[in-house]
Amino acid sequence: MNTLDEVGEFGLIARVTANRRQPAGTLLGPGDDAAVVAAPDGRVVACTDVLVEAVHFRLDWSTPEQVGRKAAAANLADVAAMGAVPTALLVGLACPASTPVETLEGLADGLWAEATAVGVGLVGGDVASSATLVVSVTALGDLEGREPVTRSGARPGDVVALCGRVGWAAAGLAVLSRGFRSPVAVVGAHRVPEPPYAAGPQAAIAGATAMIDVSDGLLADLGHLAQASGVLVDVRSPTLQVPARLAEVASALGADPLHWMLTGGEDHALAATFPPDATLPPGWTAIGRVCEAGDGPGVLVDGRPYAEPAGWDHFAR
Amino acid sequence: MNTLDEVGEFGLIARVTANRRQPAGTLLGPGDDAAVVAAPDGRVVACTDVLVEAVHFRLDWSTPEQVGRKAAAANLADVAAMGAVPTALLVGLACPASTPVETLEGLADGLWAEATAVGVGLVGGDVASSATLVVSVTALGDLEGREPVTRSGARPGDVVALCGRVGWAAAGLAVLSRGFRSPVAVVGAHRVPEPPYAAGPQAAIAGATAMIDVSDGLLADLGHLAQASGVLVDVRSPTLQVPARLAEVASALGADPLHWMLTGGEDHALAATFPPDATLPPGWTAIGRVCEAGDGPGVLVDGRPYAEPAGWDHFAR
Repeated sequence: MNTLDEVGEFGLIARVTANRRQPAGTLLGPGDDAAVVAAPDGRVVACTDVLVEAVHFRLDWSTPEQVGRKAAAANLADVAAMGAVPTALLVGLACPASTPVETLEGLADGLWAEATAVGVGLVGGDVASSATLVVSVTALGDLEGREPVTRSGARPGDVVALCGRVGWAAAGLAVLSRGFRSPVAVVGAHRVPEPPYAAGPQAAIAGATAMIDVSDGLLADLGHLAQASGVLVDVRSPTLQVPARLAEVASALGADPLHWMLTGGEDHALAATFPPDATLPPGWTAIGRVCEAGDGPGVLVDGRPYAEPAGWDHFAR
Repeated sequence: MNTLDEVGEFGLIARVTANRRQPAGTLLGPGDDAAVVAAPDGRVVACTDVLVEAVHFRLDWSTPEQVGRKAAAANLADVAAMGAVPTALLVGLACPASTPVETLEGLADGLWAEATAVGVGLVGGDVASSATLVVSVTALGDLEGREPVTRSGARPGDVVALCGRVGWAAAGLAVLSRGFRSPVAVVGAHRVPEPPYAAGPQAAIAGATAMIDVSDGLLADLGHLAQASGVLVDVRSPTLQVPARLAEVASALGADPLHWMLTGGEDHALAATFPPDATLPPGWTAIGRVCEAGDGPGVLVDGRPYAEPAGWDHFAR
């Protein structure tokens, strides 16, 4: 099994870029100083997300391919949350020189798998040696002539809606943290999120006034949206139907599945606000209302502050 | 002095994004799921470069601001090497939770300083905790209606030309490695490169057939260009005038200044090939010729293979 320092930087790049099929929007792929990607809208959406080993993933819990898929998904979901369609991925990789090439090929396979699922290519990147494995992914996207759906457009009276799973990755993490490897449904949700990519542009077309990728937790991210919009978001907990599988896992671990759904991150659902008369696109469920901020912007659950910490601040003690 | 885990992820982001002035091309800056950047050409140039503490920089040799400038410059030079004009930067940062906020503010100041120098903004990014400080920067650029200048367009008969400094960063690194802090001119070149950004688009306008950012070393990077173009590049060493300051430093250290110029990386000069009848833009100097590959593509110095290792492969033993 070769390691990175045996094949070298250029050897690795040759191996992970060989035989990859770029979509038509990749006008110039890897191998030059920079890539060239189609931006037909005349504006490009861009975001960067960083995943670190032992913080965001563990290679004894996830395969390298799963880590690659997750790193790509986190960024592609951010593009979708603007109402945009992804157009390309780039990756900045730092890892120990002793890393097996197979691990890095698996990572690249995962990045490619998720990229291919949304019709884009991995168009460029860089690799450097580091004591810690760090995967920094940048995603680009196209707005197709629409205005970006920001976090700041929610207005009192709007409907708050959700598309995609929440709480599943948190359940999976809870299971793995206790030394179990099943049920596969929740463990798999921690390993590889399934963001509803197409729901982002669909929400934009349906008139969404604000949108956010649920990466830190539903309440935390609705809190960011509420802050940016200067409104109060009231989530109606009865609208959040607890899936039977989540209820089972919670029961087995003595946990509260609704707490996972309200505060668990990393599922990369999309949350958005729509005008009261909008027809929600397929897959979207109304989960609350936007109200006047009153004493200040924030999030309520059934009209009251939620008692538990609402989500994930990466460095907070 | 606060550390990152004391102010938290969102506290840090608030501090490094406050009071920054975005250029007109930043249509939506930091603070949402993704940024939106103007791409008037309808295509976007994109590249990613990773810098790792103790590999690419040392915080006892460089200030955080210098590291930020260097990380930005490495990427902005790649955009210039396509003949494009930079439009935006994004940064993926991984660092220990114990990192002083002042260090990260310095890094951000440096990224902003270099971005501002070329008229772009730092439009987005992410920060995560990691045992190692890793800075992954992505730069975007606009081709202004021109075709990208790739590495693969050099043709036999073309003139090989250089714009910008070579060997200075290598001299600076040699000085620092021996425990000295001066002369400032070469140490400064290691800390903060001075890529000739405008020379990239100027070369494209002048008809450059191929171009590359000199980051690994002149011969190594001309080797990449020669490989991609399927040609032989012959560098005429008498055209590389050794600057007096470089000669002095080399003499003091018992080193060969021409070797630094041929093999030293990280100055981010631009090397390009031009048709034989092209007028070189200001700042460009002819340093050699493109020849038929014959027995295979590669680089010669004065018609002969260069005896020393030609450059930098990040992981090669």
